[in-house]
Amino acid sequence: MDRPQDNFAGASFASDNTAPATPEVMEALSTANRGPQPAYGADEITARLERRFAELFEHDVAVFPVATGTAANALALSACTTPWGLMYSHRLAHVNEHEAGAPEFYSGGTRLVPLDGPNGKLSLDALKSELDAAGFGVVHESQPQAVTITQASEAGTLYRLDEIRAIADLVHGRGMTLHMDGARFANAAAGLGTAPADLTWRAGIDIMSFGATKNGALAAEAVIAFDPALATSLAFRRKRAGHLLSKQRYLSAQIEAGLIDGRWLGWARHANAMAQHLAQGLTALGVATLDFPVEANEIFVRLPEPVIAGLEADGFAFPTAARRPTSSSSGW
Amino acid sequence: MDRPQDNFAGASFASDNTAPATPEVMEALSTANRGPQPAYGADEITARLERRFAELFEHDVAVFPVATGTAANALALSACTTPWGLMYSHRLAHVNEHEAGAPEFYSGGTRLVPLDGPNGKLSLDALKSELDAAGFGVVHESQPQAVTITQASEAGTLYRLDEIRAIADLVHGRGMTLHMDGARFANAAAGLGTAPADLTWRAGIDIMSFGATKNGALAAEAVIAFDPALATSLAFRRKRAGHLLSKQRYLSAQIEAGLIDGRWLGWARHANAMAQHLAQGLTALGVATLDFPVEANEIFVRLPEPVIAGLEADGFAFPTAARRPTSSSSGW
Amino acid sequence: MDRPQDNFAGASFASDNTAPATPEVMEALSTANRGPQPAYGADEITARLERRFAELFEHDVAVFPVATGTAANALALSACTTPWGLMYSHRLAHVNEHEAGAPEFYSGGTRLVPLDGPNGKLSLDALKSELDAAGFGVVHESQPQAVTITQASEAGTLYRLDEIRAIADLVHGRGMTLHMDGARFANAAAGLGTAPADLTWRAGIDIMSFGATKNGALAAEAVIAFDPALATSLAFRRKRAGHLLSKQRYLSAQIEAGLIDGRWLGWARHANAMAQHLAQGLTALGVATLDFPVEANEIFVRLPEPVIAGLEADGFAFPTAARRPTSSSSGW
Amino acid sequence: MDRPQDNFAGASFASDNTAPATPEVMEALSTANRGPQPAYGADEITARLERRFAELFEHDVAVFPVATGTAANALALSACTTPWGLMYSHRLAHVNEHEAGAPEFYSGGTRLVPLDGPNGKLSLDALKSELDAAGFGVVHESQPQAVTITQASEAGTLYRLDEIRAIADLVHGRGMTLHMDGARFANAAAGLGTAPADLTWRAGIDIMSFGATKNGALAAEAVIAFDPALATSLAFRRKRAGHLLSKQRYLSAQIEAGLIDGRWLGWARHANAMAQHLAQGLTALGVATLDFPVEANEIFVRLPEPVIAGLEADGFAFPTAARRPTSSSSGW
Repeated sequence: MDRPQDNFAGASFASDNTAPATPEVMEALSTANRGPQPAYGADEITARLERRFAELFEHDVAVFPVATGTAANALALSACTTPWGLMYSHRLAHVNEHEAGAPEFYSGGTRLVPLDGPNGKLSLDALKSELDAAGFGVVHESQPQAVTITQASEAGTLYRLDEIRAIADLVHGRGMTLHMDGARFANAAAGLGTAPADLTWRAGIDIMSFGATKNGALAAEAVIAFDPALATSLAFRRKRAGHLLSKQRYLSAQIEAGLIDGRWLGWARHANAMAQHLAQGLTALGVATLDFPVEANEIFVRLPEPVIAGLEADGFAFPTAARRPTSSSSGW
Repeated sequence: MDRPQDNFAGASFASDNTAPATPEVMEALSTANRGPQPAYGADEITARLERRFAELFEHDVAVFPVATGTAANALALSACTTPWGLMYSHRLAHVNEHEAGAPEFYSGGTRLVPLDGPNGKLSLDALKSELDAAGFGVVHESQPQAVTITQASEAGTLYRLDEIRAIADLVHGRGMTLHMDGARFANAAAGLGTAPADLTWRAGIDIMSFGATKNGALAAEAVIAFDPALATSLAFRRKRAGHLLSKQRYLSAQIEAGLIDGRWLGWARHANAMAQHLAQGLTALGVATLDFPVEANEIFVRLPEPVIAGLEADGFAFPTAARRPTSSSSGW
Repeated sequence: MDRPQDNFAGASFASDNTAPATPEVMEALSTANRGPQPAYGADEITARLERRFAELFEHDVAVFPVATGTAANALALSACTTPWGLMYSHRLAHVNEHEAGAPEFYSGGTRLVPLDGPNGKLSLDALKSELDAAGFGVVHESQPQAVTITQASEAGTLYRLDEIRAIADLVHGRGMTLHMDGARFANAAAGLGTAPADLTWRAGIDIMSFGATKNGALAAEAVIAFDPALATSLAFRRKRAGHLLSKQRYLSAQIEAGLIDGRWLGWARHANAMAQHLAQGLTALGVATLDFPVEANEIFVRLPEPVIAGLEADGFAFPTAARRPTSSSSGW
Repeated sequence: MDRPQDNFAGASFASDNTAPATPEVMEALSTANRGPQPAYGADEITARLERRFAELFEHDVAVFPVATGTAANALALSACTTPWGLMYSHRLAHVNEHEAGAPEFYSGGTRLVPLDGPNGKLSLDALKSELDAAGFGVVHESQPQAVTITQASEAGTLYRLDEIRAIADLVHGRGMTLHMDGARFANAAAGLGTAPADLTWRAGIDIMSFGATKNGALAAEAVIAFDPALATSLAFRRKRAGHLLSKQRYLSAQIEAGLIDGRWLGWARHANAMAQHLAQGLTALGVATLDFPVEANEIFVRLPEPVIAGLEADGFAFPTAARRPTSSSSGW
């Protein structure tokens, strides 16, 4: 039998948010729970986590674990902007489509400007054209201050190094800051086979959201600031947003579990491979069309209604995008 | 030997935030992790949690699990106020002293007015006198809208039913809303031996923060709205604040673990008993003075410097309040 | 000689913001200054202004004079939205292009979504298509709440009654609110020859900004709420924004001066006629192209560089739009 | 007859907000209205105003005219703080009592901490004691950032040079910023006979609100920043708050009218003298008690009820403070 679903018997094709945590993460929680530990991030696990991130990124970093990607993105962007600023993202970006105004809330009203670009990636030309038309220094207009790109993108595609560098050069050339939403950074790093340092600060990323929830954790993300000057503001911003956990060690432990022995990349590599497998099978079926190239662990597929009905009857779970037919999401 | 510390060998007298989670909570996490579950609170555990809370409080409730008490308080207060409002708390309240402006952030600038009262409890007279002087309806003045009381209080004391009712009557009589910060609500319910319903909505509480982190969980609190009309706003407020966890089931599981078979009260009863034990021992020593009556699980004790030094030399951990000598905190 | 500029000898073609106030407005200020008057809008002039507006609009209205159109728009929109909302405008709208984030500031972060439409007017189809794709009630997405249209538009064009009604029906059908930026409402009313009531609440406008600064005043606009329920919130919002003037009578007097004997329409009719005259002359010259139909008192004209240089050499003042060549503005 | 009220026949004892503008201010408006002028502060009058302020203060200044004192205060304080900050004022301060939350709105939620002090003046000891207890650098606590003092104070009293310097030294020593609410700065400068430079930046004032509305203008105040580094932020903050007037020249003209030939001091000297006259007469009557020393142009007087009734029957207007008997205000 080579019907593709056989290879995924019992599997869920729903969002990666539905997946359980890895055994290593659960084990790390148990270990972290063995006795009392200082509160609010003064614990040993958090200290180790910071060292591990510094090693991973080959750079001094300020690390701010939080419980959600929305919080990580909003905190990071707020540290890069003023309330009368502009921040730019791809139109499909999570910050634009699925955060219910968190970036505006955290920043105090900074305006988010969605831009286009093929395959869910911000177009350098679109950004340049927008910035060329912007009123830098004109008091009547909101001021361009930050750009955010998502790696892997919300379309499941990847920015190449030269693409990131070109955007970073443009952004820095205008005195602005570049943020990376790395909710699926692991899938990007695994997919590109590139060192985290190369993919981030060496390419011009100033600050990032590093995701673990979609890669084995229960609920753990981290803002990583490559510029230590951002640390003071972020510490207060995080606390004031209610995202400084009193028992932060449990957040840190979840993330650290992935950083040990490169597990985070292994988990992501597996997810990417499964996505490739599924995409190839779907394509081979002849009834499916993919909206975007499958480069990480997200698949956006168009299926005939009867096929959808049949799959659902067979117990497969996956999200359908009734409202926005062009972005039907079935990440994993 | 009857030196009190013998009974606490190896124990930490630091904040209850340093304590590990209970085995039941850890077990609940493992159970929640057995397979995929719908994201963003559409899971079975969250559904069960809502039913359990409705039973516990003998009332329909809207439940919003979040990761921190600061978030719970700020969300709850923001739902009760407008940005040009006033909210009142005791001067020692966590919202006033230890949330770095979260209430103002979430509410969009509502002003927090700290009031006094003996033993960490808001004085009815102080509140009445403040409200009598307030400019209700006067466009030049911020508008009184909400009051928050902490149960158990930040001084480790408890509001009696008639005290809550008197405050609630005053608050409602002025068209305002009453919030309870229940970060240690379990300790209050255990200490008073009163039904949760009596301690809350039947006494006039409109909305509360229900704490689990300080009572056995890793990081889990919940906003409980007794007025369903608040639910819509809270759902958006929570998401926009980055406090809607994609894998919310893990938050719900932590809280639910406590609600099964009344464990939460048992854990709190134990903590209260230990606090009593310690307080009595300290008093018996003749060198310690207690700042407040010990009614829950917090002890605020003044010790001679040599005693502090000796305890620390023996490996006991507890916070010292160098900066604010009058509220030296050593909760547990 | 019939070279058009002869008819405008010594005239300025710069923004109408450069024009002086009318003698009637100056006279009203002198009259208002004859003696002491109650502060903060408790004066007789303000009371008369409210009655005049009620007559003008044939409807009970709540009137909030402020010093700028930016404040009027931002206040009005903030009263129609929550911080997790969406408000829609034309891309060329003043709120989108020239208010430096005031709508976001006043609303607490509500997102402004710019839409397209020919001749500076919001396209019903574009709006419908956007609302159809919006996530009403979906907690992950900002919520559609308000639409603002500018009458006369920023392109100097006018919405017809049926166009307003169609937008209003769509907006109200989705439970949203419709605002009109009437910075040049006088020019629209004069241009269309339609009663103010027909152009506003009878066509579905819920709240508006009524402009006087560009029509004879020094600095005076008013938020006009046709729904009295909005009055309480607006009173506090205005004060909190520092836009409740202690000597509000001077604002009210400026606006009232225009409302006496229909002067405001006469002034606007004159401005419209001059714009027509100029536009026809420019077109007749054969060197000018108009970007938009001239329906009110704004002209957006493309001229050959030598003509521009020549005009400037002759002492004519007008703004050139180096940065945004497609919206070179020379309103009057 | 020498009963004091004879000297005030027909006079109003209501707030100085009820007074008309001076002839010089009205004349300046007429002059400003003689022809078109560049918009948004690019006009000659504004340029002159800036030069006059630089001369008056013997220092480079950035000047931001706005229409209200509430706006001036809120803008100035927002430029000195972050949203997680603390700003301190006297309990009777206008920012605390009569601005409906404007300081919190403009700053994005900075908390205002009211402190005490005799005669409406901030007590150095109270401030020092508060700052000593504050958690500088502690992430759980709002951060002390700014102090505002009002000169002349809301009690009609004046800070002496050494009092200002002592507060400034304390404030700067903690890395904070000192603002002066100078809504009645003219009355203070006239009352003390001290040079404006000595009373402000030479004494340690970093930024101030300079009032004209209560001293002859219709509605005109200005934020004066002695540190040019604050100018950029303030320019955007003012625009975003809707306080950049398109025809700003009319604001500038009002303020400039006072600065010519020292008129502002003359007007204030007269007001101060009248207040002295009235206060002495009231005291001589034997039925009145003054709450505070009369040092500027405000009188807070306690009168027997029959006297109040009699005065009102005679047509005298003055505000009674039913709600807050200890601060019955009858400034002029």
